[in-house]
Amino acid sequence: MYHLFIGNKNYSSWSMRPWVLLTQAGIPFKEVMVRFDSFAPDSQFKATLQGLSPTGKVPLLVDEDLAVWDTLAIAEYIAEQHPDKQLWPKARTARAQARSVCAEMHSGFTALRGNCPMNIEADLADAGALIWRDKSGVRADVQRLVEMWSGLLEAYGGPMLFGEFSVADAYYAPVCMRLKTYGLPVPEAIAAYVARVCGLPGVQAWVEQARAEQDFLDFEEPYRMRP
Amino acid sequence: MYHLFIGNKNYSSWSMRPWVLLTQAGIPFKEVMVRFDSFAPDSQFKATLQGLSPTGKVPLLVDEDLAVWDTLAIAEYIAEQHPDKQLWPKARTARAQARSVCAEMHSGFTALRGNCPMNIEADLADAGALIWRDKSGVRADVQRLVEMWSGLLEAYGGPMLFGEFSVADAYYAPVCMRLKTYGLPVPEAIAAYVARVCGLPGVQAWVEQARAEQDFLDFEEPYRMRP
Repeated sequence: MYHLFIGNKNYSSWSMRPWVLLTQAGIPFKEVMVRFDSFAPDSQFKATLQGLSPTGKVPLLVDEDLAVWDTLAIAEYIAEQHPDKQLWPKARTARAQARSVCAEMHSGFTALRGNCPMNIEADLADAGALIWRDKSGVRADVQRLVEMWSGLLEAYGGPMLFGEFSVADAYYAPVCMRLKTYGLPVPEAIAAYVARVCGLPGVQAWVEQARAEQDFLDFEEPYRMRP
Repeated sequence: MYHLFIGNKNYSSWSMRPWVLLTQAGIPFKEVMVRFDSFAPDSQFKATLQGLSPTGKVPLLVDEDLAVWDTLAIAEYIAEQHPDKQLWPKARTARAQARSVCAEMHSGFTALRGNCPMNIEADLADAGALIWRDKSGVRADVQRLVEMWSGLLEAYGGPMLFGEFSVADAYYAPVCMRLKTYGLPVPEAIAAYVARVCGLPGVQAWVEQARAEQDFLDFEEPYRMRP
């Protein structure tokens, strides 16, 4: 049985990706929630991951005595272990594109990620309006998302980025959360894709549990004093 | 025939990875060098990549009408297309670890990357000494490298990180360049691995061509006024 170590569901965008991937694909796993704290060397968070993860971060997938300690590596591992689930697109070219968009997320979209941290239960439309007005980097990141998603939805016909659900949709699910929380303006076709992602059972389950968490962490809340 | 679009060999650490991977594996490709410039929308750099890459960045691999536009996706694509080359480790657990260390590089080591940009032809030991004294983030990044490499070299017996040459060594080749250029202190076993990486024919070829480039770009030279 896989053990997937994750952070707070309301805040941990990286944790959301493999959790949604496994859940949506119907692959059984045991969740181990490690609450975010100071991340200091002597913190509960670091103590829990000590000896398990070489980087001391989540998400972490443990499969018996193997630790896979990075989101993209976890996705590749799960896809390899469950070829019947077709978690990457089947066609060679679509698969290469899906890996490109995931890797692009992995190292990019820094303005969106920095200015709009994931916060599923919050309504931060007012903050989002100011961010949208003042942060050209966020506008550029969203423009790139719109181009990417529009192109893929057109090329593969939807409903997901590469037709059927794939790693790419799990990878962009936290981005869909951000677009909603901050009310960032996107064209209708993009809003419809966001709605379809939110309607996936694996995403719905994560969102419900995130809302139920009710754990307010100051350092994840640049725009709120209280819930 | 693959077309691999790369930036300046002396500076472009991301370009070095797939170039070394292909060259070391003996896979033929045509190199297209796109010289670094302002990266403004109307720059020669962006004009060259216009219509080819959705992100306008290098490296970019073009295989007939398919564009693969991110380093990690390029590595996965090449590994899939050439299973005989065994570019990922053969064993399931080693492969998962190799993907973890590559993904960790893909999104991490920001202090080392930010403070010590790749500059193969330069000797920046004086700058390196100040960086080492003043930048705790760089020291932490190097400490993590030392732990990672030591652990893997011990577990797999060397000479490369996972025994034989793999994507992981190509991924860390630019890091070896940085350790040398900035003279950052590492234990003997790590220095020996760096020397072995520098001795790979694929790395040697890149380094020779980087030295021959003689293209001094101010914005890539935080520590030098002239060559």
